[in-house]
Amino acid sequence: MTSRAASTTARSGRRPGNPDTKELILTAARNQFADTGFERTSVRAIAAEAGVDSALVHHYFGTKRALFLAAVDMPVDPQLILGAVLDAPVEEIGELLLRGVLGVWESPQGTAVLAAFRAAISGESTGLVSNFLTEVILRQLVGRFDDPPGSGPLRATLVASQLSGLLITRYLLRLEPIASLSVDEVVALVGPTVQRYLTGAVG
Amino acid sequence: MTSRAASTTARSGRRPGNPDTKELILTAARNQFADTGFERTSVRAIAAEAGVDSALVHHYFGTKRALFLAAVDMPVDPQLILGAVLDAPVEEIGELLLRGVLGVWESPQGTAVLAAFRAAISGESTGLVSNFLTEVILRQLVGRFDDPPGSGPLRATLVASQLSGLLITRYLLRLEPIASLSVDEVVALVGPTVQRYLTGAVG
Repeated sequence: MTSRAASTTARSGRRPGNPDTKELILTAARNQFADTGFERTSVRAIAAEAGVDSALVHHYFGTKRALFLAAVDMPVDPQLILGAVLDAPVEEIGELLLRGVLGVWESPQGTAVLAAFRAAISGESTGLVSNFLTEVILRQLVGRFDDPPGSGPLRATLVASQLSGLLITRYLLRLEPIASLSVDEVVALVGPTVQRYLTGAVG
Repeated sequence: MTSRAASTTARSGRRPGNPDTKELILTAARNQFADTGFERTSVRAIAAEAGVDSALVHHYFGTKRALFLAAVDMPVDPQLILGAVLDAPVEEIGELLLRGVLGVWESPQGTAVLAAFRAAISGESTGLVSNFLTEVILRQLVGRFDDPPGSGPLRATLVASQLSGLLITRYLLRLEPIASLSVDEVVALVGPTVQRYLTGAVG
């Protein structure tokens, strides 16, 4: 879709190309995602609340998933990490998952990830991020690690508990010496925890 | 010391009993602790910056430690937990430490602990809390779990990484099912991680 088409589409609503329009869409998206969850929220409903055409929403933000990531200020799609590790041998997933997450945190985008995480912890987007993590990201781990059946959700949230705490202590609070370890050292120390949560006994 | 004595003490400085005086002391305390760390900061220096007598600081806040906890809005002294577990048999410490921490988080004071943690993560008190955790709290774990010699600080921060993440996922983000587990279930699942960080191999 060209920006000319977007202009036409938006004619019945607010002025096209107006930065306020994007912000209206993002606000509507936050409301809708928070109210009904990621899966059950439609782009159509978001567009309706923002007073624009669905096509304009797609034009500005792409997919519903991309709109969500923009709405919660998430600079990197967690899917990029998960996709790379979910097909690995089961006994290597703990280390691979941890290494993938650390790779993002250590990358040039890491600062933005930290800022988004900090905002999620302290601000009003907590419900949104939690919802997205649970519905979209953790669900994929759940399907892969569900032995015995039904244990998947617990395993996924246990993994989340270790990863979020690592983010906080190493990158936010910068506690030493964990803040100065190499990625390999972190993986050697914390990888077994992630692996145990994914494949170990869970009672 | 009576409040009459405090009034006399403060006569040369600002008006006694003035809520602003307490706030001046707290602000000075935050500055001093942030600049020079918990151990090297003196109540005398804080009083000097606030323009009051040291005795007034002690009158309002008690010990330097209590003043610190007030300055960072920490409602429960972490020492209460540590003291109870540091003398236990080494192989039980992981479970005891975790159970003690969960006990505070689940108590009526838990909400206040959460608020303080959230503020520390998002606000300017990050450096203060990090400093206190490192200098005062973690140091005690360090001394008890330093096998091989020198591994103590690493062990303590690894424990902090799991505990802070548990706080976030279970109490702040309330991810399910980890948010709804009983304390016993959490201890059974996460206790071995804490124990491994304290006494397992760390390369």
